Amino acid sequence: MERLDQQLRFIAEIDRLKAVIRQTMLTAPARRENSAEHSWHLAMMAMTLAEHAPPGTDIGRVTAMVLVHDLVEIDAGDLFVYADADQHARQEQAEQAAADRIFALLPPGQAAAFRGLWDEFEERRTPEARFARALDRLQPMLANLRTGGGTWAEHGITADQVLAKVRLIEDGSVSLGRYATDLVTRAVAEGLLAPARA
Amino acid sequence: MERLDQQLRFIAEIDRLKAVIRQTMLTAPARRENSAEHSWHLAMMAMTLAEHAPPGTDIGRVTAMVLVHDLVEIDAGDLFVYADADQHARQEQAEQAAADRIFALLPPGQAAAFRGLWDEFEERRTPEARFARALDRLQPMLANLRTGGGTWAEHGITADQVLAKVRLIEDGSVSLGRYATDLVTRAVAEGLLAPARA
Repeated sequence: MERLDQQLRFIAEIDRLKAVIRQTMLTAPARRENSAEHSWHLAMMAMTLAEHAPPGTDIGRVTAMVLVHDLVEIDAGDLFVYADADQHARQEQAEQAAADRIFALLPPGQAAAFRGLWDEFEERRTPEARFARALDRLQPMLANLRTGGGTWAEHGITADQVLAKVRLIEDGSVSLGRYATDLVTRAVAEGLLAPARA
Repeated sequence: MERLDQQLRFIAEIDRLKAVIRQTMLTAPARRENSAEHSWHLAMMAMTLAEHAPPGTDIGRVTAMVLVHDLVEIDAGDLFVYADADQHARQEQAEQAAADRIFALLPPGQAAAFRGLWDEFEERRTPEARFARALDRLQPMLANLRTGGGTWAEHGITADQVLAKVRLIEDGSVSLGRYATDLVTRAVAEGLLAPARA
C-alpha cells in the first residue's frame, strides 16, 4: 500500500490549491477566484475550444497540463500577470523550488511525469503548451469583460499592456488570438479598459 | 464567429459552478468546498490514481467525465449523498432538466458529446464511468478524515451507512474499494466516525 499512500498524500496536499487566491474577480458572489477552480475552468476551456488549437494538438495533454499548471502556487502563491520583471524573476525561483517539493510527493516515475507536464507548460515549446498558455491568458480577460473591467480597472491597466499579453494567445491559437484582439477593442469601446497611453 | 461565440457563452455560463456549495468541509481556511474546485480535485485524482482503474480504462475519458459531471448543479444545486430516496428522485429530475438547458448552450455536435459524457457518468455502465463515480465517492471520505470527521460528525452518519456507499467505490476499483473499507475501520477506531448502529 506504500505507493497508494504516497499518491493519497499528494492528493491531500494539493487540496491547498483551493486556498490560493488569484486577482481575477468572479460575480455572484463577488469574490476573487482561487487557483483550483481556475484550473478546472481552463480544463473545461481546453475541452470546449479544442478545435481552435493547431491540427494534431493532443487535447488530453493540454487538459492534463492546465490541471497541474498552478500546483506550484501552493508554496509560491499567485503573481499578477502585470507584475514587474523583478517580481517575475523571484516568482520563477519560488515556483521551481515548489515544483521540486510538491511533485516529489508522488512515487518517482509519476513524479517525473507530472513534473514533465509542468515543465512543458512553463517552457512553452510544444503546440500543447502554447495552447494551454493561450487559455490561461484568455480566461482572466473573459472574466474582466464580465465584471465591468475587473482587474484592468482596479490596477489601471491600459489597452497597450493587454495587447502585449495577447501575443501569447496568438502564439497558441490563431482564432483565439484574433478573438482576444477584438475583445480589447470592444473593451475600450465599452469603457471597460483604458485606451493605450499616448 | 457564431460557433466560437456559442462556445464562449458556455464557458461564461459554467463559471457559476464556482458558486455551488457542497457539504464537504475544507481546512485552512475552514469553509465548504464548491463544485468547481471539487471537479478539479477529482480530475487530479483520475490522473494520479489511474493505475487503480481496471486495465484498459481510458483515463482521458474519466478526466473529461469528472470535469463535466457536476455542471447540472448550476441549476439543480448539490445534494448530500445521505439525503433520502425522495430527495434523490427530485434531484434526478432537476438534473435532467439542467442537462437539457446547459449542454444545449454548445454548438449541436459538441452539445451531444458533452451530454454523452454526463449521461455515461450517471448511468455507470462503462469502466470509465464506474471509476469516475468511485473517485467522486472517495474524495469526500478523504476530506472527512482530514477534518476530524467532517460531514459524518455533523450529520450523525454511522459506519454502516458509509460502508453501504463504499460499494460503489469497490465497483469502480478493487484497490480503492479495499482502501475505502479500511478507511472506515480506521475512522471508527480514531473516533471520527460513529460505529454501526446495533
